[in-house]
Amino acid sequence: MIVFINDRLVDEKEAFIGISDLSVQRGFGIFDFFRTCNHVPLFLDDYLDRFYNSATQLRLEPPHSRADLRKIIFEMIDRNKIATSGFKLILTGGYSVDGFEPGKPNLIITQQPIEISPEERFEKGIKIILHEYLRDLASVKSINYMMAIYLRDKLVSKQADDVLYYKDDEVFEFPRSNVFVVTKHGAVVTPAENVLHGITRKKVLEIAGKKFMAEARMVTTEDLKDAAEVFLTSTTKRLLPVLQIDDVIVGDGKPGAITRALYNSFRKLEDEYCQRPFSPLS
Amino acid sequence: MIVFINDRLVDEKEAFIGISDLSVQRGFGIFDFFRTCNHVPLFLDDYLDRFYNSATQLRLEPPHSRADLRKIIFEMIDRNKIATSGFKLILTGGYSVDGFEPGKPNLIITQQPIEISPEERFEKGIKIILHEYLRDLASVKSINYMMAIYLRDKLVSKQADDVLYYKDDEVFEFPRSNVFVVTKHGAVVTPAENVLHGITRKKVLEIAGKKFMAEARMVTTEDLKDAAEVFLTSTTKRLLPVLQIDDVIVGDGKPGAITRALYNSFRKLEDEYCQRPFSPLS
Repeated sequence: MIVFINDRLVDEKEAFIGISDLSVQRGFGIFDFFRTCNHVPLFLDDYLDRFYNSATQLRLEPPHSRADLRKIIFEMIDRNKIATSGFKLILTGGYSVDGFEPGKPNLIITQQPIEISPEERFEKGIKIILHEYLRDLASVKSINYMMAIYLRDKLVSKQADDVLYYKDDEVFEFPRSNVFVVTKHGAVVTPAENVLHGITRKKVLEIAGKKFMAEARMVTTEDLKDAAEVFLTSTTKRLLPVLQIDDVIVGDGKPGAITRALYNSFRKLEDEYCQRPFSPLS
Repeated sequence: MIVFINDRLVDEKEAFIGISDLSVQRGFGIFDFFRTCNHVPLFLDDYLDRFYNSATQLRLEPPHSRADLRKIIFEMIDRNKIATSGFKLILTGGYSVDGFEPGKPNLIITQQPIEISPEERFEKGIKIILHEYLRDLASVKSINYMMAIYLRDKLVSKQADDVLYYKDDEVFEFPRSNVFVVTKHGAVVTPAENVLHGITRKKVLEIAGKKFMAEARMVTTEDLKDAAEVFLTSTTKRLLPVLQIDDVIVGDGKPGAITRALYNSFRKLEDEYCQRPFSPLS
């Protein structure tokens, strides 16, 4: 696979970074992740918006313009030839003289084959656990996933698929996905503050607004317990019904009707997008 | 300078790590940092204890035994020939297949010339600001310094030297130093929980216990306001008097007598240690 580092495309086997980079030294950097379908980068502009926004928030200056990034992505799609892939853009704190002060950011772009959550996974749903935690600078897509990786053992021991962060009775997000709650009155809600603004979250909120009451607002652990349906959204998982939270079954323990309707609408939106030819310009 | 990566010594110009390393991908890794004086690694065993403890807590298995690490450090001291230096040991989450699951950890050891805080710096003291924050897994010396680096601009705008973390009226630590408070009754106290266990902190606590009332316990923001003296401890800064906190002068705005006594005792301890010949064995 061809990857891009700062100013050139190289084979992934030759893709290295100096050890004084601030990601290695201090875990300091931001990234973004989008996928391709049919060689088309799905909702690319939304992801690039977020990438540049994260960079701005951590005061990291990307070495390339948005137009140049589009061209690089186009070239990688053209050369790597993976129809369904995950693209990762990492922007680090750069080479640091003293291991603390940021330098000129290093940009890494990788493309890898990925599997998108299949239909059966939707039907099966997932079991989750709660964990009290609030991510630092949650609206920034930083590379800081220490807690998420630390919690892997807890997931295994609880035989759970994912962990939902909450704090002081307020529900936030999964380490790599957003959460939605469908209330008993059929309203579709997702936490507004202190979460990463997922692109799938955004699309689902738009879709939901056309058919249901839908809003981003504070979601409490009480809302979660009272929910008729709960689901997560992510780039690789689309929508997945949450059927169990700790020891409590959600609703009737099956994917709910509203979750399913949103899933189908989202799939349709995806399919339409993936038929559009992708141009490096636009 | 010669650095060590996994199993070999290389020139720092050739010191690279693959981009799939989990430090780059997810900011996941631990490290430790000690210094040499007169080519002797100061308090090495204490630092190695902490290094292995951090690794255990994040379930990272170091590729080398303690005895081997001592030999590598000895060889680097011998070849790099820097009398006063900082040694950094970084142990990352290793090369990850999917950018999330840890692999076999990568070990990086670097040695660089450093300046140790001079006498004048002690006399001048420092000005600090408070910031509400509690580090994740605070007793682990992880590479996660996002908040510390993010707060650099705030330090500049407030013309402060460092930032002290507190949360819910409990005082914890600086991003890279520990805090001590000398009460109006002459007791020397430092926060016990939710802090990194600094080696200088440990030594100062031992020294203090011989001459004064000294203990590690909860320190409140009230304790801080009421303090007769406040100082920080760190490997490169030794002890530094804190003379101003936000807009409030501490004590009479000069280094306090107890801080000075501890500083002198610590310097003496250092000097004694630095005269001992360092052997790779033992």
